[in-house]
Amino acid sequence: MIEQLREAVCGLHAELVRYNLVAWTAGNVSGRVPGEDLFVIKPSGVSYDDLTPASMVVCDLDGNVVEGEHAPSSDTAAHAYVYRHMPEVGGVVHTHSTYASAWAARGEPIPCVLTAMADEFGGEIPIGPFALIGGDDIGRGIVAVLSGHRSPAVLMQNHGVFTIGASAKAAVKAAVMCEDVARTVHVSRQLGEPLPIKQDDVDRLYDRYQNVYGQRSSR
Amino acid sequence: MIEQLREAVCGLHAELVRYNLVAWTAGNVSGRVPGEDLFVIKPSGVSYDDLTPASMVVCDLDGNVVEGEHAPSSDTAAHAYVYRHMPEVGGVVHTHSTYASAWAARGEPIPCVLTAMADEFGGEIPIGPFALIGGDDIGRGIVAVLSGHRSPAVLMQNHGVFTIGASAKAAVKAAVMCEDVARTVHVSRQLGEPLPIKQDDVDRLYDRYQNVYGQRSSR
Amino acid sequence: MIEQLREAVCGLHAELVRYNLVAWTAGNVSGRVPGEDLFVIKPSGVSYDDLTPASMVVCDLDGNVVEGEHAPSSDTAAHAYVYRHMPEVGGVVHTHSTYASAWAARGEPIPCVLTAMADEFGGEIPIGPFALIGGDDIGRGIVAVLSGHRSPAVLMQNHGVFTIGASAKAAVKAAVMCEDVARTVHVSRQLGEPLPIKQDDVDRLYDRYQNVYGQRSSR
Amino acid sequence: MIEQLREAVCGLHAELVRYNLVAWTAGNVSGRVPGEDLFVIKPSGVSYDDLTPASMVVCDLDGNVVEGEHAPSSDTAAHAYVYRHMPEVGGVVHTHSTYASAWAARGEPIPCVLTAMADEFGGEIPIGPFALIGGDDIGRGIVAVLSGHRSPAVLMQNHGVFTIGASAKAAVKAAVMCEDVARTVHVSRQLGEPLPIKQDDVDRLYDRYQNVYGQRSSR
Repeated sequence: MIEQLREAVCGLHAELVRYNLVAWTAGNVSGRVPGEDLFVIKPSGVSYDDLTPASMVVCDLDGNVVEGEHAPSSDTAAHAYVYRHMPEVGGVVHTHSTYASAWAARGEPIPCVLTAMADEFGGEIPIGPFALIGGDDIGRGIVAVLSGHRSPAVLMQNHGVFTIGASAKAAVKAAVMCEDVARTVHVSRQLGEPLPIKQDDVDRLYDRYQNVYGQRSSR
Repeated sequence: MIEQLREAVCGLHAELVRYNLVAWTAGNVSGRVPGEDLFVIKPSGVSYDDLTPASMVVCDLDGNVVEGEHAPSSDTAAHAYVYRHMPEVGGVVHTHSTYASAWAARGEPIPCVLTAMADEFGGEIPIGPFALIGGDDIGRGIVAVLSGHRSPAVLMQNHGVFTIGASAKAAVKAAVMCEDVARTVHVSRQLGEPLPIKQDDVDRLYDRYQNVYGQRSSR
Repeated sequence: MIEQLREAVCGLHAELVRYNLVAWTAGNVSGRVPGEDLFVIKPSGVSYDDLTPASMVVCDLDGNVVEGEHAPSSDTAAHAYVYRHMPEVGGVVHTHSTYASAWAARGEPIPCVLTAMADEFGGEIPIGPFALIGGDDIGRGIVAVLSGHRSPAVLMQNHGVFTIGASAKAAVKAAVMCEDVARTVHVSRQLGEPLPIKQDDVDRLYDRYQNVYGQRSSR
Repeated sequence: MIEQLREAVCGLHAELVRYNLVAWTAGNVSGRVPGEDLFVIKPSGVSYDDLTPASMVVCDLDGNVVEGEHAPSSDTAAHAYVYRHMPEVGGVVHTHSTYASAWAARGEPIPCVLTAMADEFGGEIPIGPFALIGGDDIGRGIVAVLSGHRSPAVLMQNHGVFTIGASAKAAVKAAVMCEDVARTVHVSRQLGEPLPIKQDDVDRLYDRYQNVYGQRSSR
């Protein structure tokens, strides 16, 4: 089970690279081990080219290393906090992707002006607090904003994005779509004001997408 | 015949990826089966890497699945509506490409300020209505705008782009060129007002391009 | 000799693709056959993936096909005009690259605010007239602007870029560098006014670069 | 030893290409030979595809060629000046990367509004003077700005970026991260004013990142 998850989490980092969400080593994916109080996460400071399933680090929900030769990602405490406080979460992703981080640097949520945003995020993408690394502040900020929120993505002020999902893959999808809509809405606003979508329509789109879209097996 | 079309439609999705028109699974190509009331379309929620000719879905012109193990694209109803009402159309493409969607979010047509736009689109790229997925509204909007219009592309408000063509390949070309000119005109307008092209010149360029350009076999 | 040039011109189109200067089939390279009144150019409407040395078209300086099974690029008349009137030119490139075309759509030259521009272009990149395809108007515009000008690139109004060089490779380099500086100066001006470089310094940089830079063999 | 460094310096140029920091041949990496008054640098005017360890040039700290068949990079004097005056520097990188050069063209430092900037640069990324190539002016400008500065990157006015590091790899990382934050802060400022980070917090982030982050072996 853990071996499969090591492989999956390792492989999903390639999607961060493919979609240009990360520079050098600045982004990480983790996945919860089903049925255990453990998660698998990227090692710290290792380049994406050099990642292997064996180099992934297994941590407990306090962020202590249980298995692995490398130090875990410097963002491990934030991932751990999310897994401890949001039992429905099976995957967490963190990036400094350009457009999402640009909204985050202004402390400004991304308004829901695209049907794709209504589909995936159910409304605006919210802002989390400024928080320093090194304790539970980042994790606490993520959980405070995302608990009970439709959006699987939060823009941490002056920092970057954290996304959650039922699986590591779902969290990666949210990270990819977050940057995609962050860019499109940015570009749209550069030359004027995007038209709002009525709340009723946002609700209908969100409900439909969560319940109808995709092959059953790929959800 | 259908086998060739499955292969062609499958392969054309690689062009959407190559030109960065799509993120994750958010874009689709379809092609009409010549001489039959059928079309071939992308399966829903399947990643571009995993598409195979066999995974393509064959639908009738009401959007019902005739052949295929997957559910068809969630945009199938819109494609079907276009094929039902525009018999000259042999291919349809839908994307949320960044710059085109940015114009769409403002509900603003792209003005014809490039000779390449006059060539391909014969003038501005028009805006279609805001429409919810799940019925015929999107298809109706596309057909209402594109019937009798020179442009093979319509920007659906707050949504994205639909393009049509005599073949699936021609519709893909229109999607690629639409994003290309959407980006160039956007960039141009960021620092001032692009110079208009006189209507007479637009007409001359459009006429020449439609009738002279390219190898006969590649039209 | 012509065989080598077919191969070189064919291969140089890959640089247009690599540097994202072209979408679909909208860009072309040509090279003059040394010592003969001939040049080799891309066939019209053929995709970059499908180009082969054998598919290149050989034309005389009036743009008539001398050798080749395909029709030559629809921009052949402009290339031919340049070769006829600028005997020092050994290569011509045409693209609709995004940032250069954005300046062209406003009819605005790119100011020389980067040392790399002083090096390569010796000053601003100039604007050529609006001209319709189909006769000698485009070629005449290119030659009128570039004759005696330091810049190997001209932005044709509402259209795109033409570059020239002693060889096809040099013209491709000019096209790559033109888009690069068009983008950097655009980005710089988005947030304020770039600082000018004094004319004396532009002159010194241009002189040094033209006479000192690079391996002798790669000039 | 020199053979290993030739290989490392050669290979690191691929990172400049991968992260789109360079067009054509406009960027270079060098590395100091440990324990000797020598450094290894890119040959001038050679394309990145054609670089081999054997084509790298070995120079003394005055920039004279000691080993190598090619002329060294035209920026060799600047690299040499840095090695002569900053003994702690083991690698130097120069690029004209788009966003960093755009700030440089306005003569404007990049404000520290991202935690990733606090981590890597310890504050703003500073501006160096306008300086002509051909003597020690560029090197002098780099050393004057970076000596005693936290930032390993300096934006040379109207020119581009120079970065330094304990090794060639560290200098490349600084060049990659410099462009990344230059782009994000640019994008953020396009739609408003990014929120400042308090100096205390910048200091805490910088201190932690320099002392805690990454695998010990990869620092």
